Amino acid sequence: MIYLDNAATTKPLFSAVKNAEALLSESFFNPSATYSNGIEIKKLIESARSEILKFFPIGYDLIFTSCGTEADNMAIFSFAKRGNIVTTSGEHSAVFECFNELKKRGLDVRFAPVCDDGSVDLSKLLDLVDEKTSLVSVVHVNNETGAINDINAISKRVKAKNPSAVFHSDGVQAFGKLPYKICDSIDMYSISAHKIGGLKGVGGLIKRKKLTVHPILFGGGQESGLRSGTENVFGIKVFEEAVKHKYLSINENYQKVLRLKELFIQNLTAEGVKIISGENSSAYVLSLSAEGLRGEVIMHMMEDYGVIIGTGSACSSKNPHSRILKACGHTERTLSGALRVSFIEDVTEEEVIYSAQKLSECINKLRGIMKK
Amino acid sequence: MIYLDNAATTKPLFSAVKNAEALLSESFFNPSATYSNGIEIKKLIESARSEILKFFPIGYDLIFTSCGTEADNMAIFSFAKRGNIVTTSGEHSAVFECFNELKKRGLDVRFAPVCDDGSVDLSKLLDLVDEKTSLVSVVHVNNETGAINDINAISKRVKAKNPSAVFHSDGVQAFGKLPYKICDSIDMYSISAHKIGGLKGVGGLIKRKKLTVHPILFGGGQESGLRSGTENVFGIKVFEEAVKHKYLSINENYQKVLRLKELFIQNLTAEGVKIISGENSSAYVLSLSAEGLRGEVIMHMMEDYGVIIGTGSACSSKNPHSRILKACGHTERTLSGALRVSFIEDVTEEEVIYSAQKLSECINKLRGIMKK
Repeated sequence: MIYLDNAATTKPLFSAVKNAEALLSESFFNPSATYSNGIEIKKLIESARSEILKFFPIGYDLIFTSCGTEADNMAIFSFAKRGNIVTTSGEHSAVFECFNELKKRGLDVRFAPVCDDGSVDLSKLLDLVDEKTSLVSVVHVNNETGAINDINAISKRVKAKNPSAVFHSDGVQAFGKLPYKICDSIDMYSISAHKIGGLKGVGGLIKRKKLTVHPILFGGGQESGLRSGTENVFGIKVFEEAVKHKYLSINENYQKVLRLKELFIQNLTAEGVKIISGENSSAYVLSLSAEGLRGEVIMHMMEDYGVIIGTGSACSSKNPHSRILKACGHTERTLSGALRVSFIEDVTEEEVIYSAQKLSECINKLRGIMKK
Repeated sequence: MIYLDNAATTKPLFSAVKNAEALLSESFFNPSATYSNGIEIKKLIESARSEILKFFPIGYDLIFTSCGTEADNMAIFSFAKRGNIVTTSGEHSAVFECFNELKKRGLDVRFAPVCDDGSVDLSKLLDLVDEKTSLVSVVHVNNETGAINDINAISKRVKAKNPSAVFHSDGVQAFGKLPYKICDSIDMYSISAHKIGGLKGVGGLIKRKKLTVHPILFGGGQESGLRSGTENVFGIKVFEEAVKHKYLSINENYQKVLRLKELFIQNLTAEGVKIISGENSSAYVLSLSAEGLRGEVIMHMMEDYGVIIGTGSACSSKNPHSRILKACGHTERTLSGALRVSFIEDVTEEEVIYSAQKLSECINKLRGIMKK
C-alpha cells in the first residue's frame, strides 16, 4: 500500500510509540498524585511541554488538549467576546464552525475571501479588521490546497491596524512540516499530534505567556487550570517524540517532499487535470482536479491499485463538494473531480511515480468510458 | 509495589492494550476518510459504541469524549441554561467546578448538603428542586468516600417533583465496578476509561437518545456533530475491551473487592483511626482518617513500604484539605489525617493484609514520635 493521505492523518512513528510504551503498563500513575510515582509522571508531561516549546520563540506556553480542534475552539471562544471577529473562508472546519456558532450567538463575524489557490486575500482581510475587532484567525497551511499564509507578515499587518486584536492561527498542517518560526505578533497557534506521526487524541494550544485564555473544560484544574481532565500522558509523550523527530530534519524533509510533489506532477500525464495548489503551497499537499469526473470514483479506483489518496478534508467528507475549494471560486467541473494527494518524507520516489502513473491511467480510463 | 489508589487511575488492562495495538501501527487511518481503510476504522468506533451501550438499557446513546471531565462539562453546560440548577456538595471537581463557573455567570446554582459519609441528603436535595429547575446532577459513587447514591431512586424523586428537570449523574467511579443498571429517569451519565483499565484520554457521555445535547467543541462534526475532533480510536478500542472485561465478572469482582475492603479494615489495628466510608459505600473505596496526624506524611511512609495509597482525590491535590470531606462535616483532626485506599480485584488478600498492617505500623510510629 502506498499511503498518500498524510494530511488526514499519519502513521504513528514507531520509535515514538515504543519510547512511551511504559506509560501503557508500569508507569500508569495519575500525574496529579503526590506520591513519587505520580510526581514522576507529572515531570514527564512537563518535559514534553518544554521540549515542544523549544521550537517556538521564548515567551510562549503550551496547553495540552485532546486535539487540534479543541485548541482552535479554546483560542476562538476565549477571545470572541465583543466587537467583531475576523477569519477567512479557507479555514478548517475546526475554526470555521466556531465562527459559524458565534454568528448564531449574534456576534459580528467576518469571513475574508480566499484567492483561487486557497490563500487569504490579504487586502480584503485587512479591510475587515477595524478598531472593534477582538480576534483574527488565519490558517497557516490550508488543509485542502496546501496554500501557505505568511502568518508572521499577516499578523503584523493586523496588529498595525488594531494592536489590541488577538491573532490566532491554526497551525495543524504546518507544525513539524513547514520550516517556519512564528513571531510574537502571533498570540496563539494550534498544533496536533496525529498529523506528524503522533496519536489521535492529542493536540495543543501554543499561546503567549502573558495572554489570558479561558478554559472550555472545568474541573480538577490540570494544565494550570486551563484544561481540566486527567492528562493523556501516553499521547503527550508520543507527541513529544514525534515533534523532536520531525524537527531533527525538518528542512531536509521539506526539500525531499518538495521533490516528491514535483515528481508526482511531472508524472501526471492525463489530460484535463487542473493543479489547484499554487506555486506557494506546502510541499506536503497537492490539490488537483480531474475536471468533470468524480473524484470519489477515482479515489476508489486508486485503492484497487493499492494507492490511498483523498478527495479533500477527511473531516468534511459528508459534504458533496469541498466548501474550501468552492470558496476558492472553482467551477462545478473542478469541484467534482477534486483530489488531494498529501505526502510524507517516508514515501519513495518510485512509489510517487507509480502513483502518479496509476492516477493518470485511472483518469484516462474514466474519460474513455465516459466517451462511449 | 502494592497499588491501592485505583480510584485515581488504574493500570491499563494488558489484553485490552494488546488487542488494540494495530491501531498504533498498520490501522492508523482517519475514521472520517471514505476509502475502505477509513471506513473500517469508523466501524471499529461504532462497534465499540454498541458494545459499551449493551451495559445500558435500550434507548441510550454514547458520545465518546476525551475524558470523564469533558462528559460532565458537556452534560452540565448543555442544560444549565435557565431557572436554577441543583447539585450536591459531594461532587467531583469535574461537576463542582462547572456549577461554580455557572454561578459566576449569574445562574441560580444550588448545592445540596451531604451526610457525614458523603452521600447526598436526599430530602434537602429535593427541597432545592422546584418548577424552575432545569438540571440536577448527583454523583453515583463519591470519589473520595465511596458513598453510593441510589441515583435511580433519586432521579425518580426529582422527576416526580419536576418532570422537565434533566437528570445527570457522574458515574466515573461506578461504571464497570458497581453492579448497577441505570433506569430511564437518568438522562445522562458520565463514564471514564482510565478508572477501569482503559487509558487516560477517553471518556463518554451516555445520554437518552431523544435528549438533545449541545456540543462544546465545534468543527468536523464527528460523533454525530456532538463532539468534533478526530476520534482517539486506539483509546476508544481499549476502553471497549476494558468495559467488556470488567462486565464479564462484575458481580464476582464486587464480592471479591468487598472481602478485600473488610480484610483491610479488620487488619487496621492502630488506635485513633476513623473509618469515614459508610456501610453503604462502594467496595472499591475506603476513606479513613488517622485523626490528628497528617495523611500526606503517612502516605509517604507507606510508599517506603512499597504500598501506594492516596490522600483523597488526585484531581484536587493542590488544596490542603479535602473539599468533599469538609462538606461531610468532619473536624480539622479528621481532615488532616484523611487517606483513601482504593481497591481492585487483582490485589491479593495477602497484599491487603500486609498493607493494613503496615498502615497500622506507620500510624503507631507517628503517634509515638508525636508523644515524645
